[in-house]
Amino acid sequence: MSSSQSLEKVCIIGSGNWGTAVAKIVGNNVTRFPHIDSKVMMWVFEEQVDGTPLTEVINTRHENTKYLPGIQLPANVVAEPNLLKAARDATLLIFVLPHQFIRHTCVELRGHIRPNAKAISLVKGLDTHDGGLDLVSNVIADELSKPSGSSSTNGNGRTDRLDVSILSGANIANEIAQEKFSETTIGYRIEQNGRLFHDLFNTSYFRVNIVNDPSGVELCGALKNVVALGAGFVDGLDLGDNTKAAIIRIGLMEMMRIAQYVDPSVRDATFFESCGIADVITTCYGGRNRRIAEAFVRTGLPFDDLEKEMLNGQKLQGTSTCLKVCQFLRERQLSQEFPLFTTIYNICFQGLPPDHITQFPLPHLSKM
Amino acid sequence: MSSSQSLEKVCIIGSGNWGTAVAKIVGNNVTRFPHIDSKVMMWVFEEQVDGTPLTEVINTRHENTKYLPGIQLPANVVAEPNLLKAARDATLLIFVLPHQFIRHTCVELRGHIRPNAKAISLVKGLDTHDGGLDLVSNVIADELSKPSGSSSTNGNGRTDRLDVSILSGANIANEIAQEKFSETTIGYRIEQNGRLFHDLFNTSYFRVNIVNDPSGVELCGALKNVVALGAGFVDGLDLGDNTKAAIIRIGLMEMMRIAQYVDPSVRDATFFESCGIADVITTCYGGRNRRIAEAFVRTGLPFDDLEKEMLNGQKLQGTSTCLKVCQFLRERQLSQEFPLFTTIYNICFQGLPPDHITQFPLPHLSKM
Repeated sequence: MSSSQSLEKVCIIGSGNWGTAVAKIVGNNVTRFPHIDSKVMMWVFEEQVDGTPLTEVINTRHENTKYLPGIQLPANVVAEPNLLKAARDATLLIFVLPHQFIRHTCVELRGHIRPNAKAISLVKGLDTHDGGLDLVSNVIADELSKPSGSSSTNGNGRTDRLDVSILSGANIANEIAQEKFSETTIGYRIEQNGRLFHDLFNTSYFRVNIVNDPSGVELCGALKNVVALGAGFVDGLDLGDNTKAAIIRIGLMEMMRIAQYVDPSVRDATFFESCGIADVITTCYGGRNRRIAEAFVRTGLPFDDLEKEMLNGQKLQGTSTCLKVCQFLRERQLSQEFPLFTTIYNICFQGLPPDHITQFPLPHLSKM
Repeated sequence: MSSSQSLEKVCIIGSGNWGTAVAKIVGNNVTRFPHIDSKVMMWVFEEQVDGTPLTEVINTRHENTKYLPGIQLPANVVAEPNLLKAARDATLLIFVLPHQFIRHTCVELRGHIRPNAKAISLVKGLDTHDGGLDLVSNVIADELSKPSGSSSTNGNGRTDRLDVSILSGANIANEIAQEKFSETTIGYRIEQNGRLFHDLFNTSYFRVNIVNDPSGVELCGALKNVVALGAGFVDGLDLGDNTKAAIIRIGLMEMMRIAQYVDPSVRDATFFESCGIADVITTCYGGRNRRIAEAFVRTGLPFDDLEKEMLNGQKLQGTSTCLKVCQFLRERQLSQEFPLFTTIYNICFQGLPPDHITQFPLPHLSKM
């Protein structure tokens, strides 16, 4: 059927808590648009749940009992354990994997995606590359634009570089799955793709704003976790509401200026979007980085022990982002322009007592 | 002594919880500056505390046992029950009274302040005047610039209009009195006066930023209380962290745009200062407006009853500000540009069910 060939087709790459919440939204939305195929593929890393493959559970019970129990998925979301099979027809690729699996997954996909595919990344985190900071969206675009089997950075397997948008916001997966009102931000390079992804994600309870600032949106999602460590130290020290609000504010200001050093095209206005201020607030009041930083102060235990004990050994994203960002700043001799981030680094990695969180010179705060 | 005549002299007008916390800071700071008289007058509305006048308690025990118990005040802070006597030599007037006492106090002071006096207002709230919104700082400047005994608006008792700066920020008085770290913002019209007040208030634990945007700083302090009502409704409905962060963000964006309609000189950057984002956060997580709005949802009782029960009959500032602001918007046919403020108004005053707090059209959010 030739008309179906011009339809956009969606593949969600990832099926954890957030990926499954997104599958519910996207699965419902696609049925409203004649230009989008109503079947949504979801690549699922296969595992057994009570002796049954997770894909089979999802495809028969329409529920991801392992990662988002209790939430009904639309029947048009189809779980598929084979990555290449899941993605091969897709024109709209949604990446929603833990950061550490991205490069490997993209290498596997390389040469197997549609030439007219567009991607959106819901992945949080930062890579480092030759002393610089590398955005996950760049990793995706780089890896998927290289010719298959090659490791050179200029692709000739594709004529164009894969366009990767970003989605980030104050988005706790379980609350969104329960259809509690929230907002999110999509940062686009190509406006047409931004609008396409807006339609794919926007609902009455999940309000999408699109902005032409993909780097800004992505950097917000990574840098906020460092600020959350500072907020956790404040909580651990029982310093109260004023102090916490001050640390959040100073953190947001430092995020804005760090983002400028990483990518001068980043716009200050993006920090007023859901991906900025709203996500920083949510992360500094809820969130695991805040929680573990509070425990770090109260128990005196090292982060490694707390990760083992409180996160089943998963690594905290705030500390690894802090390490990468502060190394980036140090190499450029910018550390003293960022007293809060530098203090958080020194508390996490240099044995500085946590009560130094409020003892730094007043930064120059307004840049607008 | 002629040299003492050129010294700046401070009078704090007000001695409640916040006024007393400020007296501690200012009393300590003045001793560090040779150009400021080390005696700080504090006008105290006289009342009896266990049979002793409050001024006598303050001047002998150096503690305001009624409004800030447990905090030692510097001995150079002198409580004075007579308003005119307290203020007559002052060149630096610090207004820190409940909003409803401002006009009356200024009328009493009119014609009795030094010609070279400068003022700073720590008062939160908004007045209305001929269908417009009137800032408290304008009330102070208007009333004190009129000739004594006159009610005309053009003063000739003073040759210049009294310059009034503004101080506002994420400032819970008890936490500051305990020297917990926080920030604040001073908005000035005349830079020299902004710097003077910076020196008067800034300490290592109470960090002052000065900005040339007095209206912006003052409007933040008034409008935030309306947003806090919205945050309280969210809490009462158990909508969770995402929703609350979204309401705070949308509220901040509406605050920015309302401020523009009240005074087009207001700068967006001011909303990134402590008086903006930090104070909104503090007020939406702590704060009485949030607390009573939550109780409004949970109990179904009217605000009047909740004020009587939870605030000893004191009036909530958020509801009265909401009423004034939404009337201002309605008269200008701007209500639909401000769906969150309008929804909060409709919930408070028009019987709209609180769960409509998340049911409004997506506003146009970015104006920067």
